[in-house]
Amino acid sequence: MKKFSIAIHGGAGTLVKGMMTPNKEEAYKKALKSALDIGYKILEKDGTAIDAIEQAVCSLENSPLFNAGKGSVFTSDETHEMDASIMDGKTLNAGAVSLINGIKNPISLARDIMDKSEHIFLAGKGAMQFAKKLGYSLENTAYFYDELRHQQWVEIKDTDNFQLDHSTTNKDHKFGTVGAVACDKNGDIAAATSTGGMTNKRFGRVGDSPLIGVGNYANNKTCAVSCTGSGEYFIRGVVAYDVACLIEHKGMTLEEASKEVINKRILEIGGDGGLICVNNQGDISLPFNTEGMYRAYKSSTGKEKISIYK
Amino acid sequence: MKKFSIAIHGGAGTLVKGMMTPNKEEAYKKALKSALDIGYKILEKDGTAIDAIEQAVCSLENSPLFNAGKGSVFTSDETHEMDASIMDGKTLNAGAVSLINGIKNPISLARDIMDKSEHIFLAGKGAMQFAKKLGYSLENTAYFYDELRHQQWVEIKDTDNFQLDHSTTNKDHKFGTVGAVACDKNGDIAAATSTGGMTNKRFGRVGDSPLIGVGNYANNKTCAVSCTGSGEYFIRGVVAYDVACLIEHKGMTLEEASKEVINKRILEIGGDGGLICVNNQGDISLPFNTEGMYRAYKSSTGKEKISIYK
Repeated sequence: MKKFSIAIHGGAGTLVKGMMTPNKEEAYKKALKSALDIGYKILEKDGTAIDAIEQAVCSLENSPLFNAGKGSVFTSDETHEMDASIMDGKTLNAGAVSLINGIKNPISLARDIMDKSEHIFLAGKGAMQFAKKLGYSLENTAYFYDELRHQQWVEIKDTDNFQLDHSTTNKDHKFGTVGAVACDKNGDIAAATSTGGMTNKRFGRVGDSPLIGVGNYANNKTCAVSCTGSGEYFIRGVVAYDVACLIEHKGMTLEEASKEVINKRILEIGGDGGLICVNNQGDISLPFNTEGMYRAYKSSTGKEKISIYK
Repeated sequence: MKKFSIAIHGGAGTLVKGMMTPNKEEAYKKALKSALDIGYKILEKDGTAIDAIEQAVCSLENSPLFNAGKGSVFTSDETHEMDASIMDGKTLNAGAVSLINGIKNPISLARDIMDKSEHIFLAGKGAMQFAKKLGYSLENTAYFYDELRHQQWVEIKDTDNFQLDHSTTNKDHKFGTVGAVACDKNGDIAAATSTGGMTNKRFGRVGDSPLIGVGNYANNKTCAVSCTGSGEYFIRGVVAYDVACLIEHKGMTLEEASKEVINKRILEIGGDGGLICVNNQGDISLPFNTEGMYRAYKSSTGKEKISIYK
């Protein structure tokens, strides 16, 4: 039987001093483990990579700990704007959604755009109309309310500042994104990425997460990638596809290509963050150039690891 | 002195039988010539590539003949939703905007997002707020009204169909996008792309045009690219960056790389369309795999050509 595997992330960045306690660390690891197991079980029962990554990301979106879905940060209008994208490496089909609110699982809406529309990328009001047409119910604001997130917003709401996830100073920053990549028993691979954006963000900013080739990409011939990092720099670097091109054109391994991008190419243009990736052999790589990245992986070879720091 | 050059396009596709008359062809060529000259004169007077392509695209946006700016097609709500993107190959700075209306020159808003915001990509209501903050005035609906465009919309408005630009049957289709790429006397390159989307489109569909790495990309080290084609396939192929990667990693020339992408790689995944590109030596390539592409180029070597068909 072919090797199968899954990897997930809950964002990369500088860990805010004093905010991480043993209890909190335990809670993060438990939430990562839970999402990992949901995805892995699907693969184990002959499920597809695309199903495994969608469900793993739903689990991360349902946790208040990560900046996606339920845990999304507040925009300058005291609301939430969420982005997500998904890609199937077997067919190159993809779905993406941006600037939506009230949707419990943005990744499932991205999947529905992939499966049930003629398009790949829907945004804003139109994306909400599409969700309504499919019968999505909307969660009320209480579902997305979190005392900590709200406090982060209150602290900077009357300024021009915007922050990535729950940083409290400009030096400490974390990229609030979740993602999953997987390789199933057929050697098909897929990637999913979801985010709640930046605290106090304005002007309908679209980051890297919903952009195919940038924050998310999958192609059985090369790799499946989900990114978390300084969005504007990841856009300039076309990061997810950059990894795929190094594999395709330079013959690099998954590990070589992903490290080349994160430890060299994205640094050269000023970006920081990390990514997770798999290939159709079930290999996994999880490089990051920041202090830490919430991450976990599990493979049919028995390997399993859940980590936060380097 | 180094060679400098500019290329522009006004969309690629199948030419609708019976719609093209000698008079119309003349009008298209005149509009292309006018945009080309505006950009070329900027380069000639020691201007930058980024200024040349912005102004050339403004000229195309101001013409009712092309599906961008003034000539934008109607959405299902009988309104207009426009997208644009711009990238500076010297700095890798970029700006993009999606789902905006009433803005005369979307490419200039994309430029302002690049120059005056912390972000790269703004969409929808938020992008309109940003434009308002910068003092943009809005054109009324009469400015964007065109009898032909409106008739195209009336014909399909009560259906689930949506069409690219002014196709009248499913077999005849044209990708309504405009774009420009240029290399200035310093060897700096830049790219701009702008579109009015698809007739009767719904759900806030975002195509390839505003996506950095997909419909638009520029990097002095490789090339500047503006695309026009079947947007969803161009997204899957990450087309603009695909050309750049073939140059960077495989050592292909600009012409080899652009033809490999348009005549092979994008066809293999089901896409059709074309692109224009330049490199920092002032070389130009304008490949397309459709019946025609509205296009023109001019180089300081004296070469100049304006064409529609193959």
